[in-house]
Amino acid sequence: MQQTARMGNNRTKHAESPLSELLRAPRGSVDLRAIDTNDAPGYPGDGKEDADEQRESLEPELDDLQERLYAQGKVNPETAPRLLLILQGLDTSGKGGAIRHAVGMVDPQGIKLTAFKAPTEEERAHHFLWRIERALPGVGMIGVFDRSHYEDVLIGRVENLAPPDVIERRYDEINAFEAGLVEQGYVLVKCLLHISADEQKARLQERLDKPDKHWKYNPGDLGTRAKWDAYLDAFNVALERCNPDSAPWYVIPADKKWYRDWAVTELLREKLAALRLEWPKAEFDVEEEKRRLAET
Amino acid sequence: MQQTARMGNNRTKHAESPLSELLRAPRGSVDLRAIDTNDAPGYPGDGKEDADEQRESLEPELDDLQERLYAQGKVNPETAPRLLLILQGLDTSGKGGAIRHAVGMVDPQGIKLTAFKAPTEEERAHHFLWRIERALPGVGMIGVFDRSHYEDVLIGRVENLAPPDVIERRYDEINAFEAGLVEQGYVLVKCLLHISADEQKARLQERLDKPDKHWKYNPGDLGTRAKWDAYLDAFNVALERCNPDSAPWYVIPADKKWYRDWAVTELLREKLAALRLEWPKAEFDVEEEKRRLAET
Repeated sequence: MQQTARMGNNRTKHAESPLSELLRAPRGSVDLRAIDTNDAPGYPGDGKEDADEQRESLEPELDDLQERLYAQGKVNPETAPRLLLILQGLDTSGKGGAIRHAVGMVDPQGIKLTAFKAPTEEERAHHFLWRIERALPGVGMIGVFDRSHYEDVLIGRVENLAPPDVIERRYDEINAFEAGLVEQGYVLVKCLLHISADEQKARLQERLDKPDKHWKYNPGDLGTRAKWDAYLDAFNVALERCNPDSAPWYVIPADKKWYRDWAVTELLREKLAALRLEWPKAEFDVEEEKRRLAET
Repeated sequence: MQQTARMGNNRTKHAESPLSELLRAPRGSVDLRAIDTNDAPGYPGDGKEDADEQRESLEPELDDLQERLYAQGKVNPETAPRLLLILQGLDTSGKGGAIRHAVGMVDPQGIKLTAFKAPTEEERAHHFLWRIERALPGVGMIGVFDRSHYEDVLIGRVENLAPPDVIERRYDEINAFEAGLVEQGYVLVKCLLHISADEQKARLQERLDKPDKHWKYNPGDLGTRAKWDAYLDAFNVALERCNPDSAPWYVIPADKKWYRDWAVTELLREKLAALRLEWPKAEFDVEEEKRRLAET
């Protein structure tokens, strides 16, 4: 990302440090309890009141970058990169909201979105990465994972869905898998949407209070909530074990919905911009085609 | 659709007749050459200058309707409806543009988008509807087809990709297939983006003139363009043969990009509104859940 420390009152200026530096999960030991869920690192505006404006100000550049990526995928299917946005977070942390407001800014033709639920019988009969492989985006595409293979070391660990040595092995398997993706030209953007227990309670309360949100409420969510500490521990381990510079985690404070949506959008923009993609060169004779067209 | 013939200067008023009536392909014999590609039927605003505003004014209702559909899909997976938007049109008619600007207004979580290209070897080894079946949206979803099974009676017919009797049979197969979908609760919205040969020429010219559009240009497009009349004839037959009231075609004048995008958005809104979807009722005891949550 180009760092722009502009003077004056430019309301769409970028943060002085790239957001990917500000939000990078700590290398080595991770303690999510020490990371403020209510913060807004790098946000260039005033707050909630200008958040839509800030996010929308990223749209023209994001559009341009996404179209370059897509164009590269069409013209250079062997070498074009692809981006994979992975969203993890506890219930109500806003994975859906981020998809709606950040991913929703991008041309749907360039998006391949997969929501991973509890594995089906067929999926359980395969290696845990089987269903992940099948959902990977093609060249030129932005893949979006609403939950991911990390579930297999999160709920898998907390609920003892596999023996400890199997869970243990998965961290290495994930690292090897992701390293292979990076080598194939995938840019991985792994985002943990980090909320507080109090904020989750308020959001669950809202789902109960508003009849048009009842469908989002699942009584089972309280069972997961009761294991809050075990989940935080599992996140800490996953972020510690699977956080190389080639496939880093970002911890996005997510108590503020407007910040969460802006931050995911800005991370996408920054990661795409870092690819420095050109428009593909024509593989035909432009002047000859102009002559052919003129004759029609 | 609720017809609102509001008084005064309401800039977001709906057309006096539903757009689905204004754009409905004629029953019986169809002559696309007699339908103006440059018209803007039912457009409630002034023209290009307020087109973004008009289209965006539909967003809150469209959002609400799409979320109701999605919620119904989650809570009532046996009975919830689904919508399938089919986009057809000659090269440069703006299928991609309509997806970007109309479909792009909808939460990506509620969209299942498929672009049908020349069939793969595996697809050719199956019945022509095989790949279509596999791309159908689940309950609560909005499916979007960029091209569709109609290719098999369009390019299939013009390029003689199958014997005449096979092509002939396909119209009946399509009607039977679509009737089955409707019975399963699919709402079909079949849109032909209707452009003129002159407008296509201008758009191809633009792709040649602008280096950032070269990737969209395919020298083969001129071969298709040379068969303009044969394609119009094939469209006429398809619209005549596969146009029952339960699965109607809409002919969208598409020389004006801003009208095309508004019209597809408004058709989506109208079709979703006609479902009169309620928010699903809670399948749990709301007061009990409030008590349980309060204890956490």
